[in-house]
Amino acid sequence: QSTDKVLRHIVMFKFKDNTSAADVKKVEDAFRKLPSQIQEIKGFEWGTNNSPEGLAQGFTHCFFLTFDSEAGRAAYLPHPAHKAFGGVLGPHLDKVLVVDYWAGK
Amino acid sequence: QSTDKVLRHIVMFKFKDNTSAADVKKVEDAFRKLPSQIQEIKGFEWGTNNSPEGLAQGFTHCFFLTFDSEAGRAAYLPHPAHKAFGGVLGPHLDKVLVVDYWAGK
Repeated sequence: QSTDKVLRHIVMFKFKDNTSAADVKKVEDAFRKLPSQIQEIKGFEWGTNNSPEGLAQGFTHCFFLTFDSEAGRAAYLPHPAHKAFGGVLGPHLDKVLVVDYWAGK
Repeated sequence: QSTDKVLRHIVMFKFKDNTSAADVKKVEDAFRKLPSQIQEIKGFEWGTNNSPEGLAQGFTHCFFLTFDSEAGRAAYLPHPAHKAFGGVLGPHLDKVLVVDYWAGK
């Protein structure tokens, strides 16, 4: 791939019905710390669903990460900080969706 | 909302098993034309899933649009060009996911 392309990594969560607001916040905060812990994350943003279309399949949270190479993603996925985040998330996760793509116009 | 925030609009598709590659391409091309037809679309990129994690729930295509306001989104959703795109997509659509969010850090 050319070096000016970016690899997007989209992660969506639906939390369990009995997950508290405080635990949702812990997961949000833990994910938001990852860019400071994993240098391969070149871009990061997130937010909660506000679509009026009713097609979110129950997903409420979206995290949008950018890598500049597949090697960057390959370093991120097994990174200890990412694994530790998984430990925070796991007990509260109902379902997850991950889609990655090279951004084209 | 402050004017420097951006409203993201993520759309994912899974096509029918019997949709031809040519018809998939027609849908891709039709979606890619929308930014030139709908001025409220302030950013546009797309790509096909290449995540190694196996958590894409069958979705193969992701389109990532940016609006600068909820009014922009409200103009986009019922826009005639968007509706025409829906006509191209509809016969080939197995499932769709739409999640929108105000981008935070």
